Amino acid sequence: MISNREEVTQLILSAKVRKGIKWGKVAELIGLSKEWTTAACLGQMTFDKEQAEKVGDLFELSDEATAWLQVAPYKGSLPTAVPTDPLLYRWYEIVNVYGSTIKELIHEEFGDGIMSAIDFSMDINREEDPKGDRVNVVLSGKFLPYKTY
Amino acid sequence: MISNREEVTQLILSAKVRKGIKWGKVAELIGLSKEWTTAACLGQMTFDKEQAEKVGDLFELSDEATAWLQVAPYKGSLPTAVPTDPLLYRWYEIVNVYGSTIKELIHEEFGDGIMSAIDFSMDINREEDPKGDRVNVVLSGKFLPYKTY
Amino acid sequence: MISNREEVTQLILSAKVRKGIKWGKVAELIGLSKEWTTAACLGQMTFDKEQAEKVGDLFELSDEATAWLQVAPYKGSLPTAVPTDPLLYRWYEIVNVYGSTIKELIHEEFGDGIMSAIDFSMDINREEDPKGDRVNVVLSGKFLPYKTY
Amino acid sequence: MISNREEVTQLILSAKVRKGIKWGKVAELIGLSKEWTTAACLGQMTFDKEQAEKVGDLFELSDEATAWLQVAPYKGSLPTAVPTDPLLYRWYEIVNVYGSTIKELIHEEFGDGIMSAIDFSMDINREEDPKGDRVNVVLSGKFLPYKTY
Amino acid sequence: MISNREEVTQLILSAKVRKGIKWGKVAELIGLSKEWTTAACLGQMTFDKEQAEKVGDLFELSDEATAWLQVAPYKGSLPTAVPTDPLLYRWYEIVNVYGSTIKELIHEEFGDGIMSAIDFSMDINREEDPKGDRVNVVLSGKFLPYKTY
Amino acid sequence: MISNREEVTQLILSAKVRKGIKWGKVAELIGLSKEWTTAACLGQMTFDKEQAEKVGDLFELSDEATAWLQVAPYKGSLPTAVPTDPLLYRWYEIVNVYGSTIKELIHEEFGDGIMSAIDFSMDINREEDPKGDRVNVVLSGKFLPYKTY
Amino acid sequence: MISNREEVTQLILSAKVRKGIKWGKVAELIGLSKEWTTAACLGQMTFDKEQAEKVGDLFELSDEATAWLQVAPYKGSLPTAVPTDPLLYRWYEIVNVYGSTIKELIHEEFGDGIMSAIDFSMDINREEDPKGDRVNVVLSGKFLPYKTY
Amino acid sequence: MISNREEVTQLILSAKVRKGIKWGKVAELIGLSKEWTTAACLGQMTFDKEQAEKVGDLFELSDEATAWLQVAPYKGSLPTAVPTDPLLYRWYEIVNVYGSTIKELIHEEFGDGIMSAIDFSMDINREEDPKGDRVNVVLSGKFLPYKTY
Amino acid sequence: MISNREEVTQLILSAKVRKGIKWGKVAELIGLSKEWTTAACLGQMTFDKEQAEKVGDLFELSDEATAWLQVAPYKGSLPTAVPTDPLLYRWYEIVNVYGSTIKELIHEEFGDGIMSAIDFSMDINREEDPKGDRVNVVLSGKFLPYKTY
Amino acid sequence: MISNREEVTQLILSAKVRKGIKWGKVAELIGLSKEWTTAACLGQMTFDKEQAEKVGDLFELSDEATAWLQVAPYKGSLPTAVPTDPLLYRWYEIVNVYGSTIKELIHEEFGDGIMSAIDFSMDINREEDPKGDRVNVVLSGKFLPYKTY
Repeated sequence: MISNREEVTQLILSAKVRKGIKWGKVAELIGLSKEWTTAACLGQMTFDKEQAEKVGDLFELSDEATAWLQVAPYKGSLPTAVPTDPLLYRWYEIVNVYGSTIKELIHEEFGDGIMSAIDFSMDINREEDPKGDRVNVVLSGKFLPYKTY
Repeated sequence: MISNREEVTQLILSAKVRKGIKWGKVAELIGLSKEWTTAACLGQMTFDKEQAEKVGDLFELSDEATAWLQVAPYKGSLPTAVPTDPLLYRWYEIVNVYGSTIKELIHEEFGDGIMSAIDFSMDINREEDPKGDRVNVVLSGKFLPYKTY
Repeated sequence: MISNREEVTQLILSAKVRKGIKWGKVAELIGLSKEWTTAACLGQMTFDKEQAEKVGDLFELSDEATAWLQVAPYKGSLPTAVPTDPLLYRWYEIVNVYGSTIKELIHEEFGDGIMSAIDFSMDINREEDPKGDRVNVVLSGKFLPYKTY
Repeated sequence: MISNREEVTQLILSAKVRKGIKWGKVAELIGLSKEWTTAACLGQMTFDKEQAEKVGDLFELSDEATAWLQVAPYKGSLPTAVPTDPLLYRWYEIVNVYGSTIKELIHEEFGDGIMSAIDFSMDINREEDPKGDRVNVVLSGKFLPYKTY
Repeated sequence: MISNREEVTQLILSAKVRKGIKWGKVAELIGLSKEWTTAACLGQMTFDKEQAEKVGDLFELSDEATAWLQVAPYKGSLPTAVPTDPLLYRWYEIVNVYGSTIKELIHEEFGDGIMSAIDFSMDINREEDPKGDRVNVVLSGKFLPYKTY
Repeated sequence: MISNREEVTQLILSAKVRKGIKWGKVAELIGLSKEWTTAACLGQMTFDKEQAEKVGDLFELSDEATAWLQVAPYKGSLPTAVPTDPLLYRWYEIVNVYGSTIKELIHEEFGDGIMSAIDFSMDINREEDPKGDRVNVVLSGKFLPYKTY
Repeated sequence: MISNREEVTQLILSAKVRKGIKWGKVAELIGLSKEWTTAACLGQMTFDKEQAEKVGDLFELSDEATAWLQVAPYKGSLPTAVPTDPLLYRWYEIVNVYGSTIKELIHEEFGDGIMSAIDFSMDINREEDPKGDRVNVVLSGKFLPYKTY
Repeated sequence: MISNREEVTQLILSAKVRKGIKWGKVAELIGLSKEWTTAACLGQMTFDKEQAEKVGDLFELSDEATAWLQVAPYKGSLPTAVPTDPLLYRWYEIVNVYGSTIKELIHEEFGDGIMSAIDFSMDINREEDPKGDRVNVVLSGKFLPYKTY
Repeated sequence: MISNREEVTQLILSAKVRKGIKWGKVAELIGLSKEWTTAACLGQMTFDKEQAEKVGDLFELSDEATAWLQVAPYKGSLPTAVPTDPLLYRWYEIVNVYGSTIKELIHEEFGDGIMSAIDFSMDINREEDPKGDRVNVVLSGKFLPYKTY
Repeated sequence: MISNREEVTQLILSAKVRKGIKWGKVAELIGLSKEWTTAACLGQMTFDKEQAEKVGDLFELSDEATAWLQVAPYKGSLPTAVPTDPLLYRWYEIVNVYGSTIKELIHEEFGDGIMSAIDFSMDINREEDPKGDRVNVVLSGKFLPYKTY
């Protein structure tokens, strides 16, 4: 019996290590970006039926687990409010250190409102650099203005 | 008497509203990106003497306040661990929802290590889009591998 | 010297009690809903120049305070993550008790996504009832689906 | 052995995915609103004997699980004080951003007191809109005044 | 300038110590229980105009402070979520230790619902006892059942 | 193997629902108040041997579980510092809203000290009322003065 | 204007450093132990009129401040739930590391109940030791048994 | 498989209740104080091989469990930062209320430094008293001065 | 099925106690420092294939567990934000007490930037001393300056 | 009036920036290490009379402020339990990531006990390195074993 999506994420992670599957391969299999696909496998996005079946086959999931892949999950992938993992903490630190800057510059350009985290995409790539390669990340989110009413 | 950098940030913000200064203009004045300049004005980066004097003149700061601009500040620009402001929360949410994805994909590409938040730059721009303009953000951080010893 | 919008909110609240102003009257003055107007006075929304001047006149604010009304504020109106005030706690309780229900029903109807809190309006009214009048609140938020990419 | 209502909620959720049951159907079965019914299935409300038996049959629960459906549960459906799930966070944000507004307007109309979260109902519907459909939610709670004594 | 009710509470407490006023006397003055009166003076209840003026006179408050006494306050009288003061902690401990008992017994007697903290009164008295006097407290709150809809 | 009292509480709660036992009946069985008896069953008080055996027989506990009933438990019956359950929250709210009042009035009557939560009893009853029945609770705790030394 | 006891504690500490007063001398002055006297000066105990006047004279307090010394204070002398100061942390650590031991041994000797922190005294002394002097602390608190009712 | 000391503590506690062993007896068995012995059994101190074997025999532990008794444990015996159990809370309260007093008096006598919680012993005894027996606790910790360098 | 690295850490710790393996021996086996090796065994660093196989053999891990040793782990080895274990707390205390000093001195020597915790090594040794041996720890981290852009 | 050491720290920091004083110079002035001297200036250590006077002269402190330098301060130099400043966070991260390793290795070498943070010294230096200079830190703390009693 499976009673939440988190258990399916555990099954996927376990199979991934056991079988040596790469996220890039999963993305190719379903024809979407590696970012969205990984997020979905990790229980942050919802697969449609066809995608779920491909993923279920790849990771050898039961029908029940495959059904859970099509249910909108309870999102949030960090075990604590402030992440302890150094890679993730650096991202939290960027928000913490540059947060007021981001707020000022978006408001200066767009006025009051937000950058959507729903109508949103992310692209993570290697940027070759002789002084040491860099991680290059492009975030694109629709600007949503607060409206008066 | 000024006893911390935070007080200077307050002076800058107050002068900015009173005099209607734009961050873009401050950046032009010191010849650096608007992102770094704004972060520095908001007490997250350190100005050198020449930059501090230009900024001090613009915001009509005292010599004492201008001296503080050259002191490495206690960083962190959010009043709470989880930000309450909707614009900033969306960034925190991106880290929360996509955190495990970011971790998996950077490790898949680069191995164990982090994306630096120190040897780091950020570029925020408007991306025109007929369905509504988007905020486009490019983050670039050097990959730092964990080494064995 | 005013260094944040919160100080202006304090000035408005002080003048409101001293002069006996009603929120409904402020809303009439600027021709918008009482909900948006009150939120803006309390430092959660941004006035444009004309609105700010009307509000500034009514509450007898200085030019500097009036300038701050036009700056996008750092939002969040509760002093603690879980509100201690009984009226506000009941709203937090509704989210806490009905939260999983709200999530299930919106996903059942719309699929994965959220109800926007930005493209959003709220209308609070008295609902007469012989067994005791009721507070009737209508919330309307655009549904924003997660997209694949 | 079942020792709390939460375990029964897990059984219901598991059966729901496995058998593809819709909340709307459960509501029809017991003749109440989809909001109350879903809340009750998720362990936030208490079924009477007849309702419990219908629900138990539908989800193929044991007699022991069905008995638990008739016990007043320990309520609260969020795993953390500030929800991490984006859909639920937007609701928390509404309380956070509009909280002081809600408090001011209810007191302006009704005087000191609260909007009940017990003598309360909620109605969630799709509001069609050419610019994108909206989630329309009506909350109705009895006003309870503080009394002097 | 007074910008919140809390400041008025400080003025009342200061005057009380300076002038040696007893809460019992304040209650007599306005003709209500000492419990409600003290709560109102401490910024947890709202005075009407006549009561506010009597209280204002007694504590020699300004007209502005007296006006604030008639505004519904942001309630909550403890500086931390778990009180550090031993007298108050014992009350928190009662809720903590006996909480599950209270919940079981009220539900056994009344079914699912709550004991109101709004339609509520409290009476604190000395109970003489040869083994040492006791504090006797009677709490009376209307039972509010959850309703189906 | 049972390694803490909490497990025995789970066994009791499970048996209670399965067998439909009322707390009032348990209290009658051991000849004490329903309040103390329930608290003891829920792992907040300690049974003596005779009481433990009666309770063990009623709930069909093993000898090991019955032995645990006679061990002073680690007390505290709430899963979080601020309870999420609405019935329990109302009690926490009473302490929060009326806390400063309770402190002032007990000190005004008794001087510095506390109301004991150990030499303490509680009595919960239905108070019939044509406007809706009320929960009537009497708390009685010995006053313990701070002594000089 | 003084609005809480904490401000008087600040006045006492300031005068103590300025005038080089020792706690032992204050204790002699009012004829009580140095432990109780220091706690009272630091706002944790309540002086009677005669004691307050002696203390007020010594620290050159105003009449208003002296009046506050006779008011039962809001107790709790640590700025955070877990103390950061190393001396105080060691005491917290003793409770943390030896807590379960203390609980087991007091219950083994006395049965269920507590060691009072109200009917309590403390005596702190130097214990000479050739391997380095020791701090010797004697705590004495009345045992208060839980009673059945 | 045992993977931490905590599991062994559970085994000891379970055997203790099942077999009715007293801590005083365990202390006699290994020839040390009841305080140290209990702390060690509860996973806060480390047994040497001989002690571990005696304890293992008494509680009928496996060889693996006995091996764990000789491993320095991760210490800390309270489930929450502020203990909910009334007996333990009173100790926390002593630190909270008397903390600033303890700090002042140790510094007045010894200068800057701490009372060691490592080179430390504790002795808990019954102090007979006609007004009710008392718990008498002697704490002895080496004073460790901060040194300049 | 293994679904996270933490489970493998548990397997290693269990085998270590059962078989009496020393960390120093593991370090010798893979030819790296005892500090890095221990951190890697405890799930904070990533082994390469050859190292993982040696470690897997030594601790008799399954192939699946050995595969997990080569996956970059979710780092962070403390169960709480402030460690309760006395040895670890002392390290946290050093950061807490000396934190502002460390920040001032590194900035005075190097300017604004950080000491890397990634390009970092640690060496822990016994420093013999007639007054009692000392723990000598050398930390070496690359200085990373903030750059302007 | 100065009522705590923190205010003196603010005075020192303000004078330091205004007058351009280096910590190294302060250390020379009083003839101790730069680490201890900085910690003492920042309110974490206690100066003796002679040191305090030299420091007071340098920073042009009043006699009252100079007197406070000789009072053992309430220690702890971080504003939050988890530091937000990137330089300090890296130190916290070292404790977090390497904490279990430090614990294992110190226990393996020394047995159960701690590394003292009181009988402790720290030495921070620049370590020249062609790949980028490094921060080299030596920590030396006396090992304090837990003793049986």
